[in-house]
Amino acid sequence: MNEINASIITIGDELLIGQTIDTNSAFLGQELNKIGIWVKRRVAVGDVYDDIWKALDEERKYSRLIILTGGLGPTADDITKPLLCDYFKTRLVRNEAVLQHIHDLYVKVYKRKAYLTEENKKQADLPENCTILHNAYGSASGMWFEDKNAHGDPIVFISLPGVPYEMKKIFVDEAIPRILQTFGGYAVVHKVLATFGLGETLIAEKIASIEKQLPSHIKLAYLPGYGQVKLRLTGKGLNKELLEQEILPYYEQIQTLLEDITIANNDDTLQIIIGKLLQQQKKTLATAESCTGGYIAHLITSVPKSSSHFNGAAVVYNNDIKEKILGVSHETLQTEGAVSEATARQMVAGALKQFDADYAVATTGILGPPTENDEKPVGTVWIAAGNKDEIISKLLNLGYDRERNIEAAALQALNLLRKFIISHG
Amino acid sequence: MNEINASIITIGDELLIGQTIDTNSAFLGQELNKIGIWVKRRVAVGDVYDDIWKALDEERKYSRLIILTGGLGPTADDITKPLLCDYFKTRLVRNEAVLQHIHDLYVKVYKRKAYLTEENKKQADLPENCTILHNAYGSASGMWFEDKNAHGDPIVFISLPGVPYEMKKIFVDEAIPRILQTFGGYAVVHKVLATFGLGETLIAEKIASIEKQLPSHIKLAYLPGYGQVKLRLTGKGLNKELLEQEILPYYEQIQTLLEDITIANNDDTLQIIIGKLLQQQKKTLATAESCTGGYIAHLITSVPKSSSHFNGAAVVYNNDIKEKILGVSHETLQTEGAVSEATARQMVAGALKQFDADYAVATTGILGPPTENDEKPVGTVWIAAGNKDEIISKLLNLGYDRERNIEAAALQALNLLRKFIISHG
Repeated sequence: MNEINASIITIGDELLIGQTIDTNSAFLGQELNKIGIWVKRRVAVGDVYDDIWKALDEERKYSRLIILTGGLGPTADDITKPLLCDYFKTRLVRNEAVLQHIHDLYVKVYKRKAYLTEENKKQADLPENCTILHNAYGSASGMWFEDKNAHGDPIVFISLPGVPYEMKKIFVDEAIPRILQTFGGYAVVHKVLATFGLGETLIAEKIASIEKQLPSHIKLAYLPGYGQVKLRLTGKGLNKELLEQEILPYYEQIQTLLEDITIANNDDTLQIIIGKLLQQQKKTLATAESCTGGYIAHLITSVPKSSSHFNGAAVVYNNDIKEKILGVSHETLQTEGAVSEATARQMVAGALKQFDADYAVATTGILGPPTENDEKPVGTVWIAAGNKDEIISKLLNLGYDRERNIEAAALQALNLLRKFIISHG
Repeated sequence: MNEINASIITIGDELLIGQTIDTNSAFLGQELNKIGIWVKRRVAVGDVYDDIWKALDEERKYSRLIILTGGLGPTADDITKPLLCDYFKTRLVRNEAVLQHIHDLYVKVYKRKAYLTEENKKQADLPENCTILHNAYGSASGMWFEDKNAHGDPIVFISLPGVPYEMKKIFVDEAIPRILQTFGGYAVVHKVLATFGLGETLIAEKIASIEKQLPSHIKLAYLPGYGQVKLRLTGKGLNKELLEQEILPYYEQIQTLLEDITIANNDDTLQIIIGKLLQQQKKTLATAESCTGGYIAHLITSVPKSSSHFNGAAVVYNNDIKEKILGVSHETLQTEGAVSEATARQMVAGALKQFDADYAVATTGILGPPTENDEKPVGTVWIAAGNKDEIISKLLNLGYDRERNIEAAALQALNLLRKFIISHG
């Protein structure tokens, strides 16, 4: 079987002017990758008939699987459906099964009156020559069109709505099985190593000798984040088992060289790693957050089943509340200030006690933008983690960007906590 | 002056396989839009020489401003710089000023020893015939190339690093002034109305008559979110003042028709709206969160200067903690359960008292994924908001997706709070 490329075309003015961030393409890229299909190009175009048409014409030259998202809503700026009819020389026909489904959705799920507007009903008008992909969560159906490219090879166009949870459900349940049936699978093997604390450049130097040895069908990529760098080895070939055997020795050499900065031998995030550690140790956690404003608690509780190991958080955004809720001493706040090592440590102690937790982590700092009343330079953050016997702490010097500083402070605090949990397990 | 289009080319395998979400393109789209340049196409390609080259060749047909991001890091998967040398028929030359800047960065900002590796130094090797765009926050310079398209019109290629805060700084400080100088500005006027609580379809029906009247140079777009729909009128033309006068009557008609669901006459988010209301009233807020796990506090504290009106939050993830920190009665938790109206209301009362706040908002619910021990159906959420005199509450029935439910519950709670604050101002 030949290697199959895919192109993703995202439709919507809101993407081009940046009012919406494109998370759909990331999801589609991940899912296609799992079944061995390489996304060669991603294109975003506006709600403009001619631009969408040109994108279809162009991507069929590059790829045999072309996925469109967006432009299927009921409102007037959505022009994809009539365009697809023109492009595939067909017409819209009202589908009674889809109409019934839309009716049921409105009555049972949205709990509205059993009355469909003309706009609602139009969502059941679908191109005559496409395969309809059922949208369990919404009223805009997915569509599957088959065609041939200039070489006479079969090519497939899939049109999906832009609402993420509807799109995901249709793609996984309806499109993936049909893609596998049509194109078969091409093997792709990934091995990811997650590191924290060292920059991309220094990591690259440490493993330069291994990188040079890699054969051409195995690639190494660096995926940098805030303080975190993920390394990914990707192999492509016909035989999955063989590929896995080939990649493993390179991966193990990298593991050995980067042992002291490795946080996971997979794609796990810090919050997932910490969740697993706490479950293994059957211990609980609380957070005491000033500058991170609840973001650490949000990261922890984004992981399903976190209620088994997370007791809670105190977000203490002014000094009185730091004293009252977490018992930080008035004197410490007066003499050392809210952004100080002593305050961070007392916040950990307070959270352990107030939330009856085995471990706690705390943050206090000045994240910007700068103001006249800042008690310390913007970017000064103290983090601390500990249990009832011991507390460790660390000073961070971050930048001026509030959003970035919240993310960086939270991840640094989680990494400090991770180390503490491991060394006290 | 002719209308100038832009294309954005994002480079990186990590985007295609979905390990990174493309936020850079959204930022660039917003900034270009502000100066009246329309992003016609966005393309993402992998770290593949030939694919990047083809993208450059293709986008120069569509646009006179082509912006590349990514592919400038020091590691071996970055191939953009040599490619740009080939494409623009030039060679890399070490730039001493950039080398000094990189050295200073390492010593002063990263606080490392004054030692640059060969990989670090390579970042100062830049194409001879480009204008260097200074990277104040990092070591990978931006590059500005001038060329002519097939019609002989001047076209510009800008290459920027992929790290968001570095890219943003270079683009705003170095690239935008040069773009304005080269192409001049074309007027674009946006008017945004933010609504909450009604779906896109029903809104479209309400304002159908206005939409039909719009002239061709004024477009209406719907930007749906979780419970929130933003409407954007966009006008393009030569004279900004004239455009503003033209758009206003359409905008005002829409305002009148959607008065009861309008939350802002601009692009403000709920957390920004609430921050402004609290500042006007000189009142303070606390949150008491179970199922949203600190996410509401995170949204509130993402807004600069939120410390002036936000006292703090209690994330109470189990029953004992709900009792201990917020004083929810043991009996209520036993008889009505943690996910109940009574619990939500007592959480508000507890947060008001514990955090000495004027207003408080609370959430308690089951967000999924489903487990055997769920006390209520997944998606059941109680939200409440109030002050010392009155508490209002609301039951939500959400879906099965944890991530989406956290977002939806938080926004619904913020909207309930917004209404309460307005009616008690």
